Amino acid sequence: MPTLIRNATILTMNDALEIVEGAVSIDAAGRIVSVGPEPDTPHETVIDAHGEYLLPGFIQTHVHLCQTLFRGYADDMPLLEWLRRRVWPLEAAHTADTLRASARLAVCELLSSGTTTALTMETVHETDVVFDAVDRMGMRAVIGKCMMDSDYDVPPRLQERTRDSIDESVALRKRWEGKGGGRLDAAFAPRFAVSCSRALLEAVADLSARERIIVHTHAAENRDEVEFVRRISGGMSNLEYLADAGLATPHLCTAHCVWVTDEEQDLLAERGVKVLHCPGSNLKLGSGIAPVAAMRARGISVSLGADGAACNNRLDMFDEMRLAATLQSVRTGPGALTARDAVWMATREGARALGLEADVGSIEPGKRADLIVIRRSPPHMAPDPDPWSTIVYAARASDVRLVMVDGAVLVRDFALVHDDAAGIAAEARQAARRLAGRAGV
Amino acid sequence: MPTLIRNATILTMNDALEIVEGAVSIDAAGRIVSVGPEPDTPHETVIDAHGEYLLPGFIQTHVHLCQTLFRGYADDMPLLEWLRRRVWPLEAAHTADTLRASARLAVCELLSSGTTTALTMETVHETDVVFDAVDRMGMRAVIGKCMMDSDYDVPPRLQERTRDSIDESVALRKRWEGKGGGRLDAAFAPRFAVSCSRALLEAVADLSARERIIVHTHAAENRDEVEFVRRISGGMSNLEYLADAGLATPHLCTAHCVWVTDEEQDLLAERGVKVLHCPGSNLKLGSGIAPVAAMRARGISVSLGADGAACNNRLDMFDEMRLAATLQSVRTGPGALTARDAVWMATREGARALGLEADVGSIEPGKRADLIVIRRSPPHMAPDPDPWSTIVYAARASDVRLVMVDGAVLVRDFALVHDDAAGIAAEARQAARRLAGRAGV
Repeated sequence: MPTLIRNATILTMNDALEIVEGAVSIDAAGRIVSVGPEPDTPHETVIDAHGEYLLPGFIQTHVHLCQTLFRGYADDMPLLEWLRRRVWPLEAAHTADTLRASARLAVCELLSSGTTTALTMETVHETDVVFDAVDRMGMRAVIGKCMMDSDYDVPPRLQERTRDSIDESVALRKRWEGKGGGRLDAAFAPRFAVSCSRALLEAVADLSARERIIVHTHAAENRDEVEFVRRISGGMSNLEYLADAGLATPHLCTAHCVWVTDEEQDLLAERGVKVLHCPGSNLKLGSGIAPVAAMRARGISVSLGADGAACNNRLDMFDEMRLAATLQSVRTGPGALTARDAVWMATREGARALGLEADVGSIEPGKRADLIVIRRSPPHMAPDPDPWSTIVYAARASDVRLVMVDGAVLVRDFALVHDDAAGIAAEARQAARRLAGRAGV
Repeated sequence: MPTLIRNATILTMNDALEIVEGAVSIDAAGRIVSVGPEPDTPHETVIDAHGEYLLPGFIQTHVHLCQTLFRGYADDMPLLEWLRRRVWPLEAAHTADTLRASARLAVCELLSSGTTTALTMETVHETDVVFDAVDRMGMRAVIGKCMMDSDYDVPPRLQERTRDSIDESVALRKRWEGKGGGRLDAAFAPRFAVSCSRALLEAVADLSARERIIVHTHAAENRDEVEFVRRISGGMSNLEYLADAGLATPHLCTAHCVWVTDEEQDLLAERGVKVLHCPGSNLKLGSGIAPVAAMRARGISVSLGADGAACNNRLDMFDEMRLAATLQSVRTGPGALTARDAVWMATREGARALGLEADVGSIEPGKRADLIVIRRSPPHMAPDPDPWSTIVYAARASDVRLVMVDGAVLVRDFALVHDDAAGIAAEARQAARRLAGRAGV
C-alpha cells in the first residue's frame, strides 16, 4: 500500500544534510520513492505531518535487549563488579519466557522513542526467542548471541565450549539472516576479550572475514578491564589484542572505546573499525568519557547506543545524542560535537557501522522507509529556531508521534499500533520478579 | 476545599526517608494534615493516585526564567563568549512583552515537569513582569532582579548604577515579598563577581545580613571566569572574594562551584553557604564537572537547578537528577551519589537552601501541599524494583501526571489546568523572533 507523508519538515540526513519542506512518497514494498514535492500518483494512505519534523529512524548500534528486565536491579557498581554480581547471574537465570518479556519490553521502548534499528548483543542461550520477538514487533535489528568460552567468574550456565559457541552462532545466522522481509540479520558477538578464549576470537575473525559478517564486541570500556586484558594478552591493549586475533576489520563493531591509546586510535582509523559510543552507560558505570571528538577528527566511525537498561537505565536515543554532544563539550570544548553531528551519529553513521547505508539512515529515494515524526508544538521545544538544536537538546522520547519501519506504521499518535504497551510492561514486571528470585538478586 | 490524595506510594522525603503506602489529606488552606492511613474526615475533592508515586514537588535552586526564549539561540560557546555574544544582547533586547512570554514558557515547562518551586535570577529590568507571571500561574518562587553595575562588555541597557540596582531590588522586595498567599519572595541577585562592583557586593551583604535575605549569585563556574576574578580581586578565588565582601553566609546561594579549591570548600562548609549544582548547564557550556560528592561529604548543602534554557536547553529536574548522580559516578565512582541522594537534593536540600524547609521539600503534616504524582505504568519504567532508581534513572518529565502547589491542582492528567500550553508555546515562538531580531542574534 503506497503511503504519502505530507506537510513535513524533512531532515533528510543525505550527504548535504538538506532540510526539505514537503512530502515523502513510499511504495507498496516499503521503499522511498520521492522526497520533497508531492507526487501526482495516488496513495492508499496519506499521513499529514502538520509541519512536524520527519527524520530517518534512529539506529542504535549497541544494545542488550536481554538486559531490559534488569533495569533498577544493578545500580551503583563499576563494570566488572556489575557483571559478576548482577548481570551474569541475571543472564544465567533467564528462561525463554523471561527473555521474551525482556526483548518485548526493549523493542516497545526502542520503537516508542524513535529507534527503528539496533545492533544487539543477547545472552548465551535462547537467542531465537529474541529474533522472534523483534521479528513479530516489526523492528529492524542485527542480533548476536553472546559468545563466552572463558571461565572467568562466570556462572556455569553461561560457560560455553568454543565449538558450541561458534556452531550456535552460525546456526542462528542460518535460521534468521534476511528474515522479516530483510529486517533481520545475525552477528557474531564475542562478549569481550575477558570472556573469550584466543581460539574463539580467531575463529570468529576467520568466519567474519570469509562471509563479511559483523562482529559485535566491547573494548576499552573500563580501566580494570584494560588492565585485565593486558595481563591475559602479555601486555597488549584491547584493540591491539583484537587486531592480533585478526578481528580489526571494517566488520568489527566495538562498543565503548573509552580508554583507547593513541596507537589504538590509529588502529581504529587505519582498519576502519567501528566505534559504538554509549555515553549514558559510560557515565552510570563510572567508566569515563570517551574521546569521541578526537576519534571523529581522525575519521573513525562513531555511532551511538544506549547499551542495556541494566546500566543506563533507558534505551532512549534522545538521551544519548544530548550526552554525546555535551560530554564532548566538557572533554574537548563547546562545539567539539554539535547537535547536527549528534543526529548524524544517531542515523547515517549507525547505518554505516552496520553496513546498511544503502537501505537506511537517511530519507532518500531508493532507501527503506524507516521514518519517525517528532512533534514541534510542545512548550519545552519552543521557540525552536534551529531543528538540530531542538531535536538534540530540547526534544524528548515522548515527542515521537509516529514510527514507520519498512513502510509499516508501528507507532501512531505516540502509541504502539500492533502491541499493547501496558500489557508488555505488566508482563515484564512479573517476569522480572521471577527472574530476580531465581538469580538471587 | 479539603483534598484527599489516596492510594499512593508516597516518597515522603522526611528525615527517615520513609516510603509510605496510603493517603495525604490536605486542608482548605493548602496544608498537609495527615500522611499514611486514610482519615475519616470528609474531603471535598478525592484524587485516586492508582498506586503511582507521590513526591514533594521538585525545587530548582538555579533558573533564569528570562532566558527561556533564548533556547536554541546560544549553543556551542563557553561561558564568557556565550554571555557576551548571546545572553547579554538578548537580555538587553527584552521588553515587558517578551519577558512575560519567556517567564510563562518557563513556568509552563517547570510545572509540567514537576518543579513547584524555583530560585530564579532574572534580567536587570522589568522584573515585576516575572513576579506577576509566576504569581498568576500558581508556582512558588524566590525571584531576584539581576544586579550588574560593572561595565565589563555589557550592553548599555544592562549597565546599572550601584544605587539604582540596590534601590530597585529593595523596591521589588517590598512589592512582592509574601505575595501569592506566601508563594513569592524576592532575593538579591548580583550576577557574578565579574559583573559587580565591590561596593555593590558589600551593600548587598549588608542588606542580606540585616534582613536575612537570600543572595543568589554565580561562582567558580568556568576557568576563565576564575582567572578574571583573580585579576580583579588581587589574586583571590571566587569564594574568597565573596567572603571578603561579607557575602559568605548561610543566605548565600551560589550556582555552579565547579572550580572550587579545597580552601573554598572549607569556606563553603564553615559558613554554611549553599551550592546550587547545575550539571546539565555545566556540561553544555563545557564548564566541567563539579566536585559534588566531595562537597556533600564535607556537609555542604548542594541542591539542583537546570540553569536557563539558553544553556541546558531544558528546565527538567529529571535530567538534572540523573546527571547529578551519573556525573559523580564518573568523577568519584559508582555509588558516590545515589539515586536517593539525587531525589533528596531535588527536594529537601532545595527547601533547605531557600530557607523554606518548614514549608516545603517533604510530605509531612504541617507543610504546604506542594506535591507531584509520577505514573508507574509505562514500559520505560518497568520493572521498577526500586522507587529511587526508577524515578532518577528511568522516569521522564512526561511521566508527571499531577502537580499541586499550596493545595491547588495546577497540572492534571499531564496538562496545565489553568493555562493553555499550546498558546504559551505559540506566543513564545513569536516573541522569540521579535527578540532575536532586535538583539541581532
